[in-house]
Amino acid sequence: MKQSDCQHTCSDFHSAIEFLGRRWMGMILYTLMSGPKRYNEIHSSIDGISDRLLTERLNELVNAALINKNLIDCSNKKVEYELTASGHALKDVIVSIHRWVEVCELEHKSKEASS
Amino acid sequence: MKQSDCQHTCSDFHSAIEFLGRRWMGMILYTLMSGPKRYNEIHSSIDGISDRLLTERLNELVNAALINKNLIDCSNKKVEYELTASGHALKDVIVSIHRWVEVCELEHKSKEASS
Repeated sequence: MKQSDCQHTCSDFHSAIEFLGRRWMGMILYTLMSGPKRYNEIHSSIDGISDRLLTERLNELVNAALINKNLIDCSNKKVEYELTASGHALKDVIVSIHRWVEVCELEHKSKEASS
Repeated sequence: MKQSDCQHTCSDFHSAIEFLGRRWMGMILYTLMSGPKRYNEIHSSIDGISDRLLTERLNELVNAALINKNLIDCSNKKVEYELTASGHALKDVIVSIHRWVEVCELEHKSKEASS
């Protein structure tokens, strides 16, 4: 890998991890992994999120092309949010973070048991 | 998985992804993946990070038991920072984010080519 390629990739990695780590972003993506959802369904799945932040994050995800906002009923202007292919591709990231949390917990418990 | 287990795991996932997404956190962890480093080595590896934020993040990582601060020369009080086992276990998370960035870029390029 050339130095310029590495800098490019590192800069993208840096932007990506900070984007995914924005307040509630991970939980919204995790909630949408199980399928398209309406605004109220997402809201009720995530304890503690405010309307302001949910709206802000959904707009950021639409702008980043990670979710689509689909009109599902023209007459009632009903919409739902659905992961795009790039959004679905985050599954491995989400799974790896869940696994890491489990590894840390096991290590913590084994340390407590041996102390 | 019981509902209580799921809520516990989701809460940990939520905390973990937001911790990893704090400003510069990902880049500091990525830099330490290649081995223990002194403060100045980390600082010079990451373009744009301030002394204040690097010090703050390193303290947070020590408190979270993801890195150790090792005294390597008592007479000069030289220290270096090294990932703990839990810190090293983040390798899969970092690799999966790098892969995701590549997938998104390829998708973006193929869309541009077909439009």
